[in-house]
Amino acid sequence: MSRTLHLNAFLMSTGHHEASWRLPESDPLAHMDVEHYIRLAQIAERGLFDSIFFADSPVLEAEPGQRPTGKLEPTILLTAAALRTSRIGLIATASTSYNDPYNLARRFASVDWVSGGRVGWNIVTTAGADAARNFGLDDVPDHRLRYEKAAEFVDVSTKLWDSWDDDAYVGDKQIGIHSDPDKVHQFDHAGEFFRVAGPLNVPRSPQAYPVLVQAGSSEDGKGFAARYAEAVFTAQQTLDDGKAFYTDLKDRARRLGRDPEAVKILPGIVPVIGDTEAHARELDEELANLILPDYQRRNLAERFNLPVEALDLDGQLPEDLPLEDDIQDAKSRFTLIVNLARRERLTVRELIARLGGGRGHRTFAGTAEQVADTIQEWFVSGAADGFNIMPAVLPSGLETFVDQVVPILQQRGLFRTEYESTTLRGHYGLARPENQFTVAESAIAR
Amino acid sequence: MSRTLHLNAFLMSTGHHEASWRLPESDPLAHMDVEHYIRLAQIAERGLFDSIFFADSPVLEAEPGQRPTGKLEPTILLTAAALRTSRIGLIATASTSYNDPYNLARRFASVDWVSGGRVGWNIVTTAGADAARNFGLDDVPDHRLRYEKAAEFVDVSTKLWDSWDDDAYVGDKQIGIHSDPDKVHQFDHAGEFFRVAGPLNVPRSPQAYPVLVQAGSSEDGKGFAARYAEAVFTAQQTLDDGKAFYTDLKDRARRLGRDPEAVKILPGIVPVIGDTEAHARELDEELANLILPDYQRRNLAERFNLPVEALDLDGQLPEDLPLEDDIQDAKSRFTLIVNLARRERLTVRELIARLGGGRGHRTFAGTAEQVADTIQEWFVSGAADGFNIMPAVLPSGLETFVDQVVPILQQRGLFRTEYESTTLRGHYGLARPENQFTVAESAIAR
Repeated sequence: MSRTLHLNAFLMSTGHHEASWRLPESDPLAHMDVEHYIRLAQIAERGLFDSIFFADSPVLEAEPGQRPTGKLEPTILLTAAALRTSRIGLIATASTSYNDPYNLARRFASVDWVSGGRVGWNIVTTAGADAARNFGLDDVPDHRLRYEKAAEFVDVSTKLWDSWDDDAYVGDKQIGIHSDPDKVHQFDHAGEFFRVAGPLNVPRSPQAYPVLVQAGSSEDGKGFAARYAEAVFTAQQTLDDGKAFYTDLKDRARRLGRDPEAVKILPGIVPVIGDTEAHARELDEELANLILPDYQRRNLAERFNLPVEALDLDGQLPEDLPLEDDIQDAKSRFTLIVNLARRERLTVRELIARLGGGRGHRTFAGTAEQVADTIQEWFVSGAADGFNIMPAVLPSGLETFVDQVVPILQQRGLFRTEYESTTLRGHYGLARPENQFTVAESAIAR
Repeated sequence: MSRTLHLNAFLMSTGHHEASWRLPESDPLAHMDVEHYIRLAQIAERGLFDSIFFADSPVLEAEPGQRPTGKLEPTILLTAAALRTSRIGLIATASTSYNDPYNLARRFASVDWVSGGRVGWNIVTTAGADAARNFGLDDVPDHRLRYEKAAEFVDVSTKLWDSWDDDAYVGDKQIGIHSDPDKVHQFDHAGEFFRVAGPLNVPRSPQAYPVLVQAGSSEDGKGFAARYAEAVFTAQQTLDDGKAFYTDLKDRARRLGRDPEAVKILPGIVPVIGDTEAHARELDEELANLILPDYQRRNLAERFNLPVEALDLDGQLPEDLPLEDDIQDAKSRFTLIVNLARRERLTVRELIARLGGGRGHRTFAGTAEQVADTIQEWFVSGAADGFNIMPAVLPSGLETFVDQVVPILQQRGLFRTEYESTTLRGHYGLARPENQFTVAESAIAR
């Protein structure tokens, strides 16, 4: 059987381009309108996407002046989308640094029940001192420590999700036994970061666990992904970088004894689609011209630990930038940005235009045919199992992709022509996890 | 203008009676079925109820053998209900002991946006060591301390909900200003229990704050309710107790400078409705006969700090019970149970039958006319602004109430005949809160 491409629709207010809200077609209040997100989910489902995805952080992520910054809590949005779609997977980011495992595991299990097995969790450790200051901290915890905590968070979560055996339910009205108490496990986890007794107050859900997604590409991030992730969202600017990342991560998973097929790698792509290549470039430029560069210049300076005056909008990046090791937050994104600017000799203004489109993800302006070509090239040459589609403008960019690119991918036999599964695990070809407590018990019984 | 009665539908799996799942009509898996809860919300909306309500605790709340114990996370359920109803209010319990203000305030604000202004929050401090052990603690924090923390939690939450001025949105596409940064407030709360910088990443919601609900009737609980609550759920067994509680709480609110009309008091009632009074009693007994008393005998013994053998099923409660002051959890419920047993000289078995119907709330078995009578009596004699309707069996008990009791209340001019508002605050006749930061600014400007 041939491999199937996987497509995830990364949804964000009026689109990933920071100036998208300024286009005449955009509703600048779409970010607070649940119907907007439901419509996007329905468009993606019409395109047979594996999933939709909401990124998130518990903090105001940009200046309110600059773009739509309000964000409805994503498990609420997923629930709304679940009620008005029937097949598409539903992925949200949630932080392991600023949640309790019991509450978060329960929320994902609940959405899995409500959606009939369609939920996924993008596990993040949450960068930034601003977020930390909303949770009683002065600064963000150390990068390594955050990842250690994330690992324990996921371990506790799987215990919670496994705390009911699949066959715990009895339902004997006559005798009056609802469920078998021996099949509901208090596990008394006591680790370095968490003590959680269990059991969860939600029986094992249709998928058992949400699909576990990871998105950081630092050393710590890759180690975490190799161990836990079933899908990886990543930013890769060139085919060579994409191949290297893909090979490296699959190898890491294999070395940990995992089936590399069970780790789906989806680079982000910001497709700007025109009737002709020239038309696509025009659209891209129209958006770039709407960027107000001052805000991103300040952002870049902060990222590089530089005073803002050190960045000349019409000059290239200074030579003496810090090293990735000196950066606490978004380490791999830092390196990507520096490499992009140096490789293409971009001025700061040009770099800002490139980043404004998708914060470091690869922007590709072209015809539907050309977008399908590049997707195929990455897919067949070992750089991707699928793509994280990040339309610059929403909903139009997603509609164009669904109406024009998806049919080409289907004609080429790369993408499904109907859903073959009802769960997100099914779409991604991932197994439903065994129950660690049931497995342990049958080992004792044997 | 005459007062309007308020009705809240307290929803729970197959009903409030612990044995309801054993009835032939009940689906013992209803508690995991979002469609069940949506159906209940729609029935309540057909009955023009002010609101539905989900109680909650982050712990397995009963023995899985004994009754349905799984609970979907309630803000997820409210979101699902919001999508399939249009007017009814949506209230959920959430704990101030086991949540972060930023995350929880955001979740309620998000449901308020998604529902168009229909959300309410039942603020609880969460009793029980079992819940504590799911959050890294060995035991539940001291009662007084929990309420102090709850007060600060609500204070921080209102700062988060007020952190965007209502008129922060600008939406100037031409110049490129989305919102006015000066109208989005970082407030840097630093208190005894919480440090939260703000602003929230959700603009001020349709209701500004969820309707603030409180449900504990201990001294600490009443003090908290008088200061913060806009609706109070309470368990009162007799009209005299109901009047005393009502008068006391309204007085406390008045003494704190609040309008007592802005604190709606809703005692719980478990209506068991029959075509005749005898028929209603039969239904009640049918349910009582399905109770397996061993489990509740253990529960009672635990509540009284007694060995289980000290409780004789066919004898009365022992004389030497502890005092309310010696009880850490559910203080007022303890006193209510002891008083109920002593006043009516109930055996332990009879007490268990009474508690099995609604955990200390008043069970009333009678015809629809009689149920309407008792509601009217409490309402007009100053014991209630409305009722927390807790059907013993769901959905049938709610349907019967809506089809038979609501029309009587309407004929008597006690209850609305159509929704007059689109928000929960509107249904309860509560004002939309002023913004504390906007108010502070205009005070300075003046």
